[in-house]
Amino acid sequence: MKQTAAVLGGGVIGGGWVARFALMGWNVNVYDPDPEAARKVEAVLTNARHSLPALYEQALPEEGEIQFCKTLAEAVNNVAWVSECVPERLDLKQTVLTEVQANCLDTTVISSSTSGFKPSELNDGATRPEQIIVAHPFNPVYLIPLVELVGDNATCLNAKAILDGLGMFPLLVRKEIDAHIADRFLEAVWREGLWLIKDGIATTQEIDDAIRYGFGLRWAQMGLFETYRVAGGEAGMAHFIGQFGPALEWPWTKLMDVPELTDELVTMIADQSDAQSGHHSIRELERIRDDNLVAMMRGLKTQNWGAGELLNDFDQKLFGNRPEPDFSKMIATVNRTIPADWTDYNGHMNEARYGQVFSDAADAFMQLVGADAEYIKAGFSFFTVDTHIRYIEECHAGDRVSVNTKVLLCEGKKVQLYHEMNHADGRLLCSGEQFMLHVDLNQRKSCPPRADLAEKLVAVAEQQKALG
Amino acid sequence: MKQTAAVLGGGVIGGGWVARFALMGWNVNVYDPDPEAARKVEAVLTNARHSLPALYEQALPEEGEIQFCKTLAEAVNNVAWVSECVPERLDLKQTVLTEVQANCLDTTVISSSTSGFKPSELNDGATRPEQIIVAHPFNPVYLIPLVELVGDNATCLNAKAILDGLGMFPLLVRKEIDAHIADRFLEAVWREGLWLIKDGIATTQEIDDAIRYGFGLRWAQMGLFETYRVAGGEAGMAHFIGQFGPALEWPWTKLMDVPELTDELVTMIADQSDAQSGHHSIRELERIRDDNLVAMMRGLKTQNWGAGELLNDFDQKLFGNRPEPDFSKMIATVNRTIPADWTDYNGHMNEARYGQVFSDAADAFMQLVGADAEYIKAGFSFFTVDTHIRYIEECHAGDRVSVNTKVLLCEGKKVQLYHEMNHADGRLLCSGEQFMLHVDLNQRKSCPPRADLAEKLVAVAEQQKALG
Repeated sequence: MKQTAAVLGGGVIGGGWVARFALMGWNVNVYDPDPEAARKVEAVLTNARHSLPALYEQALPEEGEIQFCKTLAEAVNNVAWVSECVPERLDLKQTVLTEVQANCLDTTVISSSTSGFKPSELNDGATRPEQIIVAHPFNPVYLIPLVELVGDNATCLNAKAILDGLGMFPLLVRKEIDAHIADRFLEAVWREGLWLIKDGIATTQEIDDAIRYGFGLRWAQMGLFETYRVAGGEAGMAHFIGQFGPALEWPWTKLMDVPELTDELVTMIADQSDAQSGHHSIRELERIRDDNLVAMMRGLKTQNWGAGELLNDFDQKLFGNRPEPDFSKMIATVNRTIPADWTDYNGHMNEARYGQVFSDAADAFMQLVGADAEYIKAGFSFFTVDTHIRYIEECHAGDRVSVNTKVLLCEGKKVQLYHEMNHADGRLLCSGEQFMLHVDLNQRKSCPPRADLAEKLVAVAEQQKALG
Repeated sequence: MKQTAAVLGGGVIGGGWVARFALMGWNVNVYDPDPEAARKVEAVLTNARHSLPALYEQALPEEGEIQFCKTLAEAVNNVAWVSECVPERLDLKQTVLTEVQANCLDTTVISSSTSGFKPSELNDGATRPEQIIVAHPFNPVYLIPLVELVGDNATCLNAKAILDGLGMFPLLVRKEIDAHIADRFLEAVWREGLWLIKDGIATTQEIDDAIRYGFGLRWAQMGLFETYRVAGGEAGMAHFIGQFGPALEWPWTKLMDVPELTDELVTMIADQSDAQSGHHSIRELERIRDDNLVAMMRGLKTQNWGAGELLNDFDQKLFGNRPEPDFSKMIATVNRTIPADWTDYNGHMNEARYGQVFSDAADAFMQLVGADAEYIKAGFSFFTVDTHIRYIEECHAGDRVSVNTKVLLCEGKKVQLYHEMNHADGRLLCSGEQFMLHVDLNQRKSCPPRADLAEKLVAVAEQQKALG
């Protein structure tokens, strides 16, 4: 039987909780007196349905039912979890939490999504104070894994079990503090950002670029301390702090209340860093960091955004305006390195990526004969209808490979290509054929190529005939 | 003809510059009196050769030659670019830069990699002060695109042209300031992190987790202000600041020197944000953000790291301990959603990803018959030697698809599977056959399956026979 959660407040954060629970198979009761709440939650759900399932290689559980309740009491009746997501006013939150506690089970996890208030403030005067904790999520709640849990240990452990089941990353915070952990960093960065803008040093765009083309990429995979551990190299974390330490006294930020770097503090950090990352050598961590960065930036390439857009533009430069190839020979279509994210549990390039390389080879061939980005923009393209691949040798991350392509058939809307993929050392890795049809992209139906392309294709096929 | 750059200092940053230039086809002169310099640079080059080419779908230019010079004068003779990467001591940097200027061309771009010093400090008393600028890169220099350029505008523009050619993202900083832009944020976060550790709120591991499972993912693609613009929703950036503003006066960080949020500052930020992101609606930005997050986290899945490791673990939970299927019927092997990063310029799932789905179907089949992770760990697996795919219908991001699999042949080390991929609406999208050989992973050679698996495969094939 499905479990039920209650979400109080249907804004961006509340809507995000609704989406996360519902898409992970929970029923959700929503309470929000705003007559627009259902529309707002639906908008968040639309985004979540588009993206959350795409994170997984398996189908998610059947989506739960979402019920908009008339009263708070009805919403929290008999539920396993409550997310309070009302505006950041302590008195309002206390009133809501009191009413929740009067109407829910003793076993319900009552959580507040507050960015700033401490559990001891929220549960001040409550009937069962230990039942009320902070579970602070990050926007978009349906994608970002982190949830900071603060408060009574037993209740936090119950919360952790539930959040684990939603695919989230619950982080148990040891001691309560204003703004928990993550928002303290966000606040420090925000304050520094305001200074930079006010002083005319940088615009919002320049600040964002400094982050997303720079340390943002590092932080998405290793955070702050592990990044510095790697940067510090074999000399270790204490040595790194020794080097970096003096900057604490320099005006590198306008934010100047700074802890003293005592030996005790340095040792504490170095020991914690050993416990965190000491099972990897610096060389291993460098390799892990680099492969992570490559995989993430390659992900951004697929979206043509940020660091990924930069890489796509550079690919264009590298492919360049090639001279017309000699079509009486096989055509050099691909020349590249195999990235680490193309390999699988067998320690070699996954079979599907051979198909990727041949797909890229067909794209390059089409570009060389004139079916290029402009042609596609005009509403025409080729769709593959049949592929046959013969795998001959393994290939590995870092291997340099190239593809030579030959035209087997070119007749009206039909094009058949033959590809051979070679290792830089000369070994034949793979061969295959691809049968394609020319299509009208608006009709999504096959049609003859535009006259200029048709003529070119026939001429190329004629030249290729000598290859047999 | 290849251009030449000089790098002074062969540490982590200097080595990174050497790698970036050499792998992008420049010759590089290195000067570093440390007898270990060549070994250290070689270690960085090894990492760079493994990762930088993997960012691109095209081969990089032929690698340049790296020459270790006996004197600084020899290193900077006739070069187009100098990177000064000596330790962060102003007097040392000034001495080195003076010697550089005495021995290089007037047209050489002389850049310092300094994290903190301003151009006006570095070029104080120089013969041609405008020739000396800051070009501050980020570790690892061969992968992270950002370089902060500070100093004389004409020299910075020359520097930008060179860095563009290396695939980097040069950011022209409007006014010089201690620590430029990015390191001001890093310093603020570092200071806050020291407090959190000192006060026993969080360990280095917990801080890193709060970053890499949380806002680090956001910052890698949108940075700070665009992220908040999206979070603020249709009400706009000024409204968002209004909500977030009061926190400036709360103790959300120990770093308390805070600019006043005047109307003028709020308007400045809102206007800059409009200029940066105003060409996208909030709905569009939400979709872009979500697709970026999915693509990056899917990238981290391939490395089984951070947010990606969490997703892989959850996939395992979702696949679960399935009951033995009824092998007299076709076997349900895949049930999933198509992610946005699997689509191509034709607006549909790329042909190679159909192969990916069938590859995953074969994995699931093998898992169900007992050739699971444990079996692979024991040193055995299956390699595909031939694949034939017939594409029948298009499929799109967000589509739910499933695969049913049938055994065509199972004989000694040979296994042949037939797959059908269906849309959730029932349409057949694609069918294909895969011919596999059982292999010994240590020998990388075909061999018969282990007795237990061989027996199971024969039994399954027998049951599947009825399917014809």
